[in-house]
Amino acid sequence: MALRPVNSLVRPLVARLHPYVPGEQPRIPGLIKLNTNENPYPPSPRVLKAVRAAVDGGLRLYPNPTAQALREKLAALHGCKPENLIVSNGSDELLALAVRCFVEPDHGWRQRGRNVVQFFSPSYSLYPVLADIHGATSNPVPLNLDFTLPEVGELKRGRRWVFGAGLTLVTTPNAPSGRGYPTAQLAEFCRAQQGLVLLDEAYVDFARENALELALKYPHVLVARTFSKAYSLCFQRVGYGVGHPDLIGALDKIRDSYNVNGLGQIAALATLEHLTYYRGNFRKIIATREWLAGELTELGFEVLPSQTNFLLARPPGRPASDWLAALRARKILVRWFDSPAVRDYLRITVGAQAEAAALVQAARAIVRSSG
Amino acid sequence: MALRPVNSLVRPLVARLHPYVPGEQPRIPGLIKLNTNENPYPPSPRVLKAVRAAVDGGLRLYPNPTAQALREKLAALHGCKPENLIVSNGSDELLALAVRCFVEPDHGWRQRGRNVVQFFSPSYSLYPVLADIHGATSNPVPLNLDFTLPEVGELKRGRRWVFGAGLTLVTTPNAPSGRGYPTAQLAEFCRAQQGLVLLDEAYVDFARENALELALKYPHVLVARTFSKAYSLCFQRVGYGVGHPDLIGALDKIRDSYNVNGLGQIAALATLEHLTYYRGNFRKIIATREWLAGELTELGFEVLPSQTNFLLARPPGRPASDWLAALRARKILVRWFDSPAVRDYLRITVGAQAEAAALVQAARAIVRSSG
Repeated sequence: MALRPVNSLVRPLVARLHPYVPGEQPRIPGLIKLNTNENPYPPSPRVLKAVRAAVDGGLRLYPNPTAQALREKLAALHGCKPENLIVSNGSDELLALAVRCFVEPDHGWRQRGRNVVQFFSPSYSLYPVLADIHGATSNPVPLNLDFTLPEVGELKRGRRWVFGAGLTLVTTPNAPSGRGYPTAQLAEFCRAQQGLVLLDEAYVDFARENALELALKYPHVLVARTFSKAYSLCFQRVGYGVGHPDLIGALDKIRDSYNVNGLGQIAALATLEHLTYYRGNFRKIIATREWLAGELTELGFEVLPSQTNFLLARPPGRPASDWLAALRARKILVRWFDSPAVRDYLRITVGAQAEAAALVQAARAIVRSSG
Repeated sequence: MALRPVNSLVRPLVARLHPYVPGEQPRIPGLIKLNTNENPYPPSPRVLKAVRAAVDGGLRLYPNPTAQALREKLAALHGCKPENLIVSNGSDELLALAVRCFVEPDHGWRQRGRNVVQFFSPSYSLYPVLADIHGATSNPVPLNLDFTLPEVGELKRGRRWVFGAGLTLVTTPNAPSGRGYPTAQLAEFCRAQQGLVLLDEAYVDFARENALELALKYPHVLVARTFSKAYSLCFQRVGYGVGHPDLIGALDKIRDSYNVNGLGQIAALATLEHLTYYRGNFRKIIATREWLAGELTELGFEVLPSQTNFLLARPPGRPASDWLAALRARKILVRWFDSPAVRDYLRITVGAQAEAAALVQAARAIVRSSG
């Protein structure tokens, strides 16, 4: 029997995909890594202790498949029930599950928006990739020129917005702009949508406001959170979603049974028992952020106001991609996106104060050398 | 604007799903847990040491997105290249990725098998669930009555088999039967397929043969492996796939960027540096398996020959579901599947020798009480 050529075994949809490219994760000694928005501070010593204590023969057993203890603790924290919560392998998994759960692949006939993954541009560059993987239609709609959220009236007039989109993803506060969106504006925005809205709050602990209440108030709104950035647990892949039990139940049906590793569950649980430690870190990072924004502004950068643990900044004098290389030559890694709306900017993670100071020093040297 | 009812936000396909039900994971003191095929022996002390040593401030950083070090070490072990390998969040994630990568959802028109997820029945009960989640067609084809693999000629005559199925999943050795399939027979089987074949070798370390060579020889064959069962790492969710670089590359495109947690990667790496320890455990488990099979046979059980770390056995005197309850009352948990081919059987994980002895003692008491 004739075998199919290897490439024809793969779905044409997959063969055509351009994969998401995550920020680099080099482990170069002495490198100041400000490219993937990790927290400069370690997890709480109590978290490390709890995880170490769990590294025993118990690793041979499956973890709790529904992350029951963690969901109970999160429910108490957020004033909801465990049924309002799903825990995921990082919030990336939750985003992928949401696309598969709420969006129809393109069928080629009238789908009244159910095949649309909608998001503002620029925002998290993973969203269109998830739509492509699912065979759905992306609808990127530009933010205002200053990266603020368009008012509902503007969206209606603009006609590009699909109010019945199967899934609308809003990064709030936004990446890569760093902008925070007022909860009142998000509430009005959510009320205008007919399809599901997922508020992706990966950076919300660095913001003035959060919109969790909307997920508990509106049955078509989900909020995604993660332990990665604010809680210094990128390594262990723990995120979660909050929303109506029927939405959570639907997501539960399509996730892998044991989607969240056991030590990650334990680390997240211990994290919730020492929130004062993390809140102290948030204050430090916010203070460094404001200091860094001021210094970069003085050096001629145009710095956007940030509600996150990073800054989007337009560097002076030479293209942003040149800056990327010049900083890298000084062992400082930041992020640059080759897409029209942000090509002129660098996204700079707010590190510890010493890292931010090193960045400022390097930037000063680069400014001088181009003068 | 009228909001859609909550349930209409969910895709009809998802709303209709019956989710996979994993075996229970109760943590009851004194319980003898022989229901989910976990290894009775802990990970190597060196693995525990390596993981503990990695529980530090580094948890704040993202793990390597491609599990590079682990793939290099696995490549050396299997005599292939890192490009032949993908690491996954348990092998369950790999199975789900394979369905999404190689199988078209049903379109309602002629798809020449590309929309078919095919497998033998009984085998891993997750397969039809994965097909349903993807909106594809399951094609379960019965094994021979003694749970051996049908010959290719029989499959051709039987007419139910789809040689061009998008994805054919073969659990080898099989669960829940425990049967091993000879590699020569699997090779002939693979040669007869036009679509992709995934050999799911979750239990292969307890078998006489493995079929890894087929994944390196035939460009349409993938082998899935896991660190869960044989390597006592269920808790940490690490599996992997081996095959042609083009297949691996396609799977890589659709996985989450950081799909495997960092401590899991470290645990798996350390595992590969102490294989002698695990091989000793395999020998112990196999010895207990053979002892247990003999004892149960003497008590009137019909025990299938096993190449795994569990036994499928038809208990005497009363329905298998009654046995499940009677054993549970004695704090011994085994697995029973409410499906036609195996309803008369119990699936019993081979534990440590003392656990197996406790099971035999309980079974003896149950046999007497029904006499």
